[in-house]
Amino acid sequence: MSFDDTVTIAVDAMGGDHAPGVVLEGVASALEKDEKLQVILVGPAEVVEPFASSHARCVAQPATEVIAMDEHPAQAVRKKKDSSIVVGCRAVKEGRAQGFFSAGSTGACLAGATLGIGRIKGVQRPALCSVIPSPVAPVVMTDIGANADCKPEYLVQFARMAAIYAEKIVGIESPRIALLNIGEEDTKGSQFAQQTFELMKEGVPGFVGNAEGNDIINARYDVIVTDGFTGNVTLKTIEGTSKALFSALKEVMTSSLKAKVGGLALKKDLKELKDSINADTYGGAPLLGVAGVCLVGHGSSNATAIMNGVLASAEMVRKDVAGLISEAVGK
Amino acid sequence: MSFDDTVTIAVDAMGGDHAPGVVLEGVASALEKDEKLQVILVGPAEVVEPFASSHARCVAQPATEVIAMDEHPAQAVRKKKDSSIVVGCRAVKEGRAQGFFSAGSTGACLAGATLGIGRIKGVQRPALCSVIPSPVAPVVMTDIGANADCKPEYLVQFARMAAIYAEKIVGIESPRIALLNIGEEDTKGSQFAQQTFELMKEGVPGFVGNAEGNDIINARYDVIVTDGFTGNVTLKTIEGTSKALFSALKEVMTSSLKAKVGGLALKKDLKELKDSINADTYGGAPLLGVAGVCLVGHGSSNATAIMNGVLASAEMVRKDVAGLISEAVGK
Repeated sequence: MSFDDTVTIAVDAMGGDHAPGVVLEGVASALEKDEKLQVILVGPAEVVEPFASSHARCVAQPATEVIAMDEHPAQAVRKKKDSSIVVGCRAVKEGRAQGFFSAGSTGACLAGATLGIGRIKGVQRPALCSVIPSPVAPVVMTDIGANADCKPEYLVQFARMAAIYAEKIVGIESPRIALLNIGEEDTKGSQFAQQTFELMKEGVPGFVGNAEGNDIINARYDVIVTDGFTGNVTLKTIEGTSKALFSALKEVMTSSLKAKVGGLALKKDLKELKDSINADTYGGAPLLGVAGVCLVGHGSSNATAIMNGVLASAEMVRKDVAGLISEAVGK
Repeated sequence: MSFDDTVTIAVDAMGGDHAPGVVLEGVASALEKDEKLQVILVGPAEVVEPFASSHARCVAQPATEVIAMDEHPAQAVRKKKDSSIVVGCRAVKEGRAQGFFSAGSTGACLAGATLGIGRIKGVQRPALCSVIPSPVAPVVMTDIGANADCKPEYLVQFARMAAIYAEKIVGIESPRIALLNIGEEDTKGSQFAQQTFELMKEGVPGFVGNAEGNDIINARYDVIVTDGFTGNVTLKTIEGTSKALFSALKEVMTSSLKAKVGGLALKKDLKELKDSINADTYGGAPLLGVAGVCLVGHGSSNATAIMNGVLASAEMVRKDVAGLISEAVGK
C-alpha cells in the first residue's frame, strides 16, 4: 500500500442500456469530483479517444468489440478477447488499473473478472454483493447471482467477505450477519441451509442466526448471506415489489381530482422515499473475492449512477477491500 | 360426487394469534353466508360446545390439546393426538368432514394433514400453495414452504396441482405456468432449475418458461412454480417489502402538515390499494395433494379472514379440487 491515494479505474465505456452517452457523462463527473482519480476508458477508439483527449486524468484504451446484454456470458468472454469487458479486466490483471467498473452484462463481468483478473488465493468462489434498497437502513446481501450452485463452505467465505464490505464501504460497524432461511430456529430449513448454519456458527464472527424473507428490507440484520440462486430471486423480488407498489401508488394518485391534489402535496416526500430505496446509491454490485476491484452497475444506470459506480470503485481500492479479504479469507 | 352441495368443514377453533375469539366470529359469519355449510368446530369443550349449541349447522368436536405456534410441527403432531389440528384432520380422514381449516401453525397443519389425512395416491409430495398479493392480478405460487428439499419431478406435480387450483378456485382460464429461476433463457439457473425446466417442458401443459423474481408481483405469469425453500423466502420477501413500503409511506404522510393534508385526501384510495394486496382474500394457503381439503390461514387472521378461509375450504370441496388433482396427477 502506498500513501499516495491516486487510484486508476478502468471503465467500460460500452456498459449499460444508455452507453456510451451516460457513461461518458458519469466519468466526467467522477473525474471532477475526485481529483486523485484516473480513468482508463475502454471502448471503441472513436468513442474513447475524443473523450480522453478532452479530459485530464483520462486515458483511452481502444477495444474493438462489445459484449451485448443477451450474449452467453462465459462464451462471449472467451470469444471476444478484444471486448471492452475483457480488455478492462486485463488492465487490472496487468496492474495498469486497480479496479474495473462496468454497467454492462453482469454475467460477462463476472466471467471476465474471474477469468481475467483471477481469484484471491484461498477464495473458493467470488460472490456478487449488493446493498439492498431499504427505507430503514442499508442491508448488504450476498451472493446475489454469481453462483447458482453453492456448497455450504462457500457461504462461510461469502459472509466473511461481505462483512468487510459492510464495514469498510457501507460503514456498518460490527455487522450482524444472518443466513437467509425459512424459519428462525437453528434447526430450520433445507439440508443445505442446516449444514451452512452449522459452518457459519463456527466460522463467521458476527453470525447471529437465521433470517427470513420478511427480515431483509426492514434491516433487522446488516448482512444477509445466501446462495446465488436464492439471492438473485430475492433481490429481484424486492425490486419488482417496490416497482409494482410505486406504480400502483402512481395510479392511485391520478384516479380522481381529490387524489391528484393529495398526490401533489406528497410529491416531494414520495420522491425522497423512492430515492432512499434506490439501489444506485452504492454505485453497483461488487464482485468480492477477485484479486482487485470489480464493480457492476445496473444496466439502466444514468449518469449519476455511473459516477457513483466509478467513485465507489475508487473507494474500494483506497480502503483495500481486496487486501482485507485476502487477509480474512485467503490462505 | 353428489348433487347435494352441502359441505362439512372441520375448523380449528384454536388456530391463530387471536383464537378462539376471531375464529368463532368468523365461523358464525361463514355459516350465515353459506346456508349449505356445516361446521365441525374442534377445540376445548368449554369453547366449542356453547358455540355449537347456539349456532345451527355447527357440531362441537372436543379436543383437549392445542399445538402452539412455536412447537416443533412433526413432533407436536405425533405427541398431541388430541390436539385440535390432529382431531380436525382425523375428521376428514374418517369422512365426517370433507375439509379442514386452521389459522394455526402452518408446519403442524402440514404434518397433521400429511400424516392424518394422507396423500392422494400418486402424489409424491403435497405442496403448499398461495395467491400472491399483487396489485395487478392474482398470481398463484407453489410450493411456499411445505418441502424445503425438492426433487425436480416434485415440481412437475406442484405445477399441475397449482394449475387446477388456479383454474378452479382463482378463476384463471388456461393459466400460464412459469418456473422461478435466475434468468429467462432456457439454459439459465442452478442445476436443479435446469433439470426441472426440462421436465416441466415435457410434462406440464401451459408451461411457458422461466420467470425471474421481478416477474412475480406484476402478474407476468399466472402460476409460479418453485421449491419450498425459494418459495417461502420469496413470499415472505414480498410480504416484508410491501409492509416496509406502506409503513414508510405512512411516515411520509405524517411528516409535515402539507403531507398530512395530502395523505388525508388519499386515505380511502390507499386503503383500497392495501386491501387489494391483502393475502387474506383467498382465505389461506391450500395444501395441494392431500386426499381432502386442507387450508391454512394466516396466524394474524381476523374474523373476516377466518370467514373467507372457511368459505374457501367449502368451495374447494364443491369444486372437487382434490378429485381433479387425483385425475391429473395421481395414479
